[in-house]
Amino acid sequence: MTERFYTAEHDRLREVVRGYVEREVAPNLGRWDRQRLVDREAWLAAGRLGLLGARVPPAYGGPGIDDYRVRCVIAEEMAKAGAAAPALGFALNDDIVLPYLLRLGTEEQKRRWLPGFVTGETISAIAMTEPGAGSDLRGMRAVAVRDGDGWVLNGTKTFITNGILADLVIVAAQTRIDGADAGLSLFVVEDGTPGFTRGRKLDKLGLHAQDTAELFFDDVRVPDGNLLGGVGEGLRHLIANLPSERLSIAYYGLAAAEAALGWTLDAVRERTVAGVPMLDHQAVRFRLAELVTEVEVTRGYLERLVLRYNAGELDVVDAAKAKWWATETQRRVLDGCLRLFGGEGVLLDRPLARAFLDARVQTIYGGTTEIMKEIIGRSLRS
Amino acid sequence: MTERFYTAEHDRLREVVRGYVEREVAPNLGRWDRQRLVDREAWLAAGRLGLLGARVPPAYGGPGIDDYRVRCVIAEEMAKAGAAAPALGFALNDDIVLPYLLRLGTEEQKRRWLPGFVTGETISAIAMTEPGAGSDLRGMRAVAVRDGDGWVLNGTKTFITNGILADLVIVAAQTRIDGADAGLSLFVVEDGTPGFTRGRKLDKLGLHAQDTAELFFDDVRVPDGNLLGGVGEGLRHLIANLPSERLSIAYYGLAAAEAALGWTLDAVRERTVAGVPMLDHQAVRFRLAELVTEVEVTRGYLERLVLRYNAGELDVVDAAKAKWWATETQRRVLDGCLRLFGGEGVLLDRPLARAFLDARVQTIYGGTTEIMKEIIGRSLRS
Amino acid sequence: MTERFYTAEHDRLREVVRGYVEREVAPNLGRWDRQRLVDREAWLAAGRLGLLGARVPPAYGGPGIDDYRVRCVIAEEMAKAGAAAPALGFALNDDIVLPYLLRLGTEEQKRRWLPGFVTGETISAIAMTEPGAGSDLRGMRAVAVRDGDGWVLNGTKTFITNGILADLVIVAAQTRIDGADAGLSLFVVEDGTPGFTRGRKLDKLGLHAQDTAELFFDDVRVPDGNLLGGVGEGLRHLIANLPSERLSIAYYGLAAAEAALGWTLDAVRERTVAGVPMLDHQAVRFRLAELVTEVEVTRGYLERLVLRYNAGELDVVDAAKAKWWATETQRRVLDGCLRLFGGEGVLLDRPLARAFLDARVQTIYGGTTEIMKEIIGRSLRS
Amino acid sequence: MTERFYTAEHDRLREVVRGYVEREVAPNLGRWDRQRLVDREAWLAAGRLGLLGARVPPAYGGPGIDDYRVRCVIAEEMAKAGAAAPALGFALNDDIVLPYLLRLGTEEQKRRWLPGFVTGETISAIAMTEPGAGSDLRGMRAVAVRDGDGWVLNGTKTFITNGILADLVIVAAQTRIDGADAGLSLFVVEDGTPGFTRGRKLDKLGLHAQDTAELFFDDVRVPDGNLLGGVGEGLRHLIANLPSERLSIAYYGLAAAEAALGWTLDAVRERTVAGVPMLDHQAVRFRLAELVTEVEVTRGYLERLVLRYNAGELDVVDAAKAKWWATETQRRVLDGCLRLFGGEGVLLDRPLARAFLDARVQTIYGGTTEIMKEIIGRSLRS
Repeated sequence: MTERFYTAEHDRLREVVRGYVEREVAPNLGRWDRQRLVDREAWLAAGRLGLLGARVPPAYGGPGIDDYRVRCVIAEEMAKAGAAAPALGFALNDDIVLPYLLRLGTEEQKRRWLPGFVTGETISAIAMTEPGAGSDLRGMRAVAVRDGDGWVLNGTKTFITNGILADLVIVAAQTRIDGADAGLSLFVVEDGTPGFTRGRKLDKLGLHAQDTAELFFDDVRVPDGNLLGGVGEGLRHLIANLPSERLSIAYYGLAAAEAALGWTLDAVRERTVAGVPMLDHQAVRFRLAELVTEVEVTRGYLERLVLRYNAGELDVVDAAKAKWWATETQRRVLDGCLRLFGGEGVLLDRPLARAFLDARVQTIYGGTTEIMKEIIGRSLRS
Repeated sequence: MTERFYTAEHDRLREVVRGYVEREVAPNLGRWDRQRLVDREAWLAAGRLGLLGARVPPAYGGPGIDDYRVRCVIAEEMAKAGAAAPALGFALNDDIVLPYLLRLGTEEQKRRWLPGFVTGETISAIAMTEPGAGSDLRGMRAVAVRDGDGWVLNGTKTFITNGILADLVIVAAQTRIDGADAGLSLFVVEDGTPGFTRGRKLDKLGLHAQDTAELFFDDVRVPDGNLLGGVGEGLRHLIANLPSERLSIAYYGLAAAEAALGWTLDAVRERTVAGVPMLDHQAVRFRLAELVTEVEVTRGYLERLVLRYNAGELDVVDAAKAKWWATETQRRVLDGCLRLFGGEGVLLDRPLARAFLDARVQTIYGGTTEIMKEIIGRSLRS
Repeated sequence: MTERFYTAEHDRLREVVRGYVEREVAPNLGRWDRQRLVDREAWLAAGRLGLLGARVPPAYGGPGIDDYRVRCVIAEEMAKAGAAAPALGFALNDDIVLPYLLRLGTEEQKRRWLPGFVTGETISAIAMTEPGAGSDLRGMRAVAVRDGDGWVLNGTKTFITNGILADLVIVAAQTRIDGADAGLSLFVVEDGTPGFTRGRKLDKLGLHAQDTAELFFDDVRVPDGNLLGGVGEGLRHLIANLPSERLSIAYYGLAAAEAALGWTLDAVRERTVAGVPMLDHQAVRFRLAELVTEVEVTRGYLERLVLRYNAGELDVVDAAKAKWWATETQRRVLDGCLRLFGGEGVLLDRPLARAFLDARVQTIYGGTTEIMKEIIGRSLRS
Repeated sequence: MTERFYTAEHDRLREVVRGYVEREVAPNLGRWDRQRLVDREAWLAAGRLGLLGARVPPAYGGPGIDDYRVRCVIAEEMAKAGAAAPALGFALNDDIVLPYLLRLGTEEQKRRWLPGFVTGETISAIAMTEPGAGSDLRGMRAVAVRDGDGWVLNGTKTFITNGILADLVIVAAQTRIDGADAGLSLFVVEDGTPGFTRGRKLDKLGLHAQDTAELFFDDVRVPDGNLLGGVGEGLRHLIANLPSERLSIAYYGLAAAEAALGWTLDAVRERTVAGVPMLDHQAVRFRLAELVTEVEVTRGYLERLVLRYNAGELDVVDAAKAKWWATETQRRVLDGCLRLFGGEGVLLDRPLARAFLDARVQTIYGGTTEIMKEIIGRSLRS
């Protein structure tokens, strides 16, 4: 028999995730959408069930499971419930911020910050993008000036996922020492630090329950103990972490496409158009055949990349391929499914219409499709 | 010199429309979106400026201008303001309901109903679609039973544009006389008629200011004077009116695509990505070149169909071609434009994101793209 | 009634063209393909019927009809016979070379050269492209050095349509006078001029009867009387003539797509798949509906551009839009038609397979789709 | 480290195949194209190197290697040389006919026929398709009537790969016994059997060296010893063998796409357009990024299906997905590559133009894309 992607252990995890989604997520989604915020309690409940911080080593309160398939199971079950916004919140903690802390954190920093990633008490964010700067890592204007035994941080960040809830924000800023430019560095700014304020929640066309926001840093004093990974090393660290972030977005894209296809197949099997069962219309069968194939092809490809990531071998170019391919597939699949629902496809009390909206930003954040193609294209020179 | 599509008279009209949009529409769009309803005052102001009911003959209070280009000008100016929802409301009156009244109304009916279409005092709707029935005209379950010198109407309709505001609704229903089926007929039901109630406003993924709703008819007594166009003639009338409805949707699709492209070109000319003017990126130039061409090609095609419509020569198959082509072009163009905005593309305080949402239903209502292809495909048999 | 594109006069011309194609073209196509050359007799017969050189003024033996619709009629009838190679040969004369002579020729030159364009005795070519240089007009290496009262021309040209048959070739070359660069100029080189030789006929994947070839110019003496349009004016003239060339390619693309669709509709109406008439398969109907619409949309757009061209108003950007749009449509339509034929689609004894092959180069010559997008993209800067 | 698809043994095989292709295939391709036939010597040389009949068990002269990756290596190396026609010939023997003989052959039949599949002395074909019947297995008109202790076979078959060279043809025919229909059965007809003749080689738009032909069976006497797999079992057997055939076509599609991309990357790295290296044009980089990604995604998917096939788990629906996906990807990639070559893309002395032509039939034979979608679509009912 050919190898399965998941083991029995993943199957057991899936049961736990399912129970969690059913009890803690699904009943609250509508409310979270309206309040434009996920409840903290959803994080704590996930923490109690062991769904957060799987990679955190036992020394810091976690199980130390270094297997991305754990995150795949969670993404799939969240997607089936149409819970893209909380799924993205969790992904920010586990796939984006946690790898920084694990790789770059000092012993002291790990002891301070990692336990909260397991319990769900710490919600995190990463602040790279600035107004008007797009996905461009260079040309940041936030600046941290050396001052005594610490730093004074000033700048504005935008499109920050978990922006309102975040207890801990990794901020990328230019560093300046004695008037000289010392390169990009990463700082951890904690909630409550004087000068750190949140701006308005951004009103997006989807992901309504996600508290994407602007963040302001006004003469924020950051002690040396909150510098992450060495002065001037920021750009290198940001780039090193891109594969993880992009694989995370790509995989959720696949999970969301599969979920939408599942809802659609269920609907299409029950319905009639003009008195004829929908699947008796050849055009419906053909469209579904295309969507089903596209999703399976993408799964075959992504599972391989997940295993490569587990083996520490996923590079920036692979991740760029996965990111644009999977999110564009998601977009096409969601559009294709929506069409099969006719007028009902646009009703927001159905999960599909909301998933369609939530999908739109997937080809944009974490680096647009165009930036992914640029990365891949440049890699072809030799 | 080659013929222009518009005359100087249309240019003058455009100035009036622009002023109207600037004063009455643009400042209110956000509020209308939130209240999920366009103010009646917007209709009355349009009426005062002569922007409504152009086709209504002088005998009934209108100017009697039988030129669809009048509607084209209005569509274009509304689209430039991102005012899809009120534009759709007006289109319902002028492109969909008015032709029924003009073609089928008795002298008495015209005198009763047409003046309000000119002043903006009458907002109208047409009630065809029923829950679970999609775009299928056959298989309607609403029924009007002959009773004395009138009819008793029962049924439920859904996805009704202008559903909440409508003062006058054309309802399609099966007619039954003495227990025998007498075919589909059209009835005008007026606001306030006992048994006629409105259901919930539908929560759609776009067109938020449009009051799309469910309508209920519960033992509604309709006098003979409100029968439109003969008993059992309904299906024929509905089909006869499809070209007008579909051309209207198609043309708005073109207007919306042009508007989006305009906003995008403005933005792209000003912006830089990674320090480089956007238009210096070849991929940006190529994408825009494609969008610009697609829009011009579609304009060339649609202008010809508008003139054919003016000449009374636009048939059902032509209208089906125009409908799917223009709305799919709109969808592609909106998607293409949105991508060029990067992260900002998803922010709802920009007109583009809202236009993207408003566009989504265009390939669905008035007959889905799939139904259009079926109509065209069937016409190819001989 | 809406305006027709063609007048009764065009209808009469069409009858003549039809007779010509039936007698002189269709029976010989297979042989021309095998010999990789169209017979000169086909040109002479066309000349006798008045199908060539319509724009040539009466003073030089022609009818002086400045109406591109004449060429449209011919393109359509040739396409219906699958005669892309001879159609391209004629287009080279009438749409590409003739405009140069008409616009730039001296009285003496016109008297020498124009009559042959009407009788079919003169077959012409234009030699721009050089090996390895693609569609790039700049950076030509052919050079004409001033020598006494004439020029000495050296260079190699490739991808030259009508290369083997051409009696008269317009050659673009850098000019040098007294060792100084004098810009690009155009020279007319006639068959038999010493030093002018033809290379191999290029073996292309389609257009087999077209004698596309390499041309060599080895110390060719060109008298001043064969300089066309002024020293150093070549680039300007080449650019000025691009709209005509590209409209010609675009229109043939439309004509070829319409012809293929016609053959396909005929076949599809007669055939069964798995015992069921092809048009009873919804996927077949949908595909045809798409193709039919695309072709009509493109016709609507191109007819407008033809009229604009007739009025002298077609600019380089418009022509670039028409060129890429129509030829890409042709490619999609040919591919779509071919699929509907199943296995037979690939058999070369059917016109469709040959038309598919002939279509391939349409998106390449006369400026590739990518160059067209670049031209359009650059025009958007302001 | 993540698992490689190929083992060291496959790497060694690849070296052998490479040498074979270099010596025996590449120098002869042009000649084979012109003679529209691959030399028998190419088969014998392949046999001597152990490249044929890998699955044949030792008892019948083969190595008995039941690993489809052997065939993958051969497909890839043949594709790199642009040798689609001989590759298809080999695939017919190894992927299509051999599985029938291995699964259905009696001991006696295996002893007679299998050794020649290893040595290359036996070239085989399978005769299903009939004129006008497309990919439809039902509705065959060829008929074998019971007569004494054998059968009399009559019928016409077309589009038969290896049709001219085949020493052994599996023919599908309706069987009739005592006037009663006994279902579809399979018969092996050997070269030289009286009444078995070959028709014309079909003139296709690609795969010129492939001797695709019509076959005629005129009162051909087939002994019981040549009946394959039981009377009336033919349809079941044909269906059982479809996954193997379709995986074979799909994999060659991938191999051909990869080869074309390889040639294109080589060319693009060396060339300039308008004086600028091609890879400095963003549109070139983007297009290549898309093609590279599509090819890798398809590889990820297909490798998984090859392993599933090795494990005996590839079903008809999976194979249908692989077939349409991989061949449509091939088509898109070949088209995309061809565009990047500009005018040279259409020259037949380059491998790319020939590969483009050879690719065209891939979406058609072995079941068209439309039939694949129908198979997948029907599988979705439950």
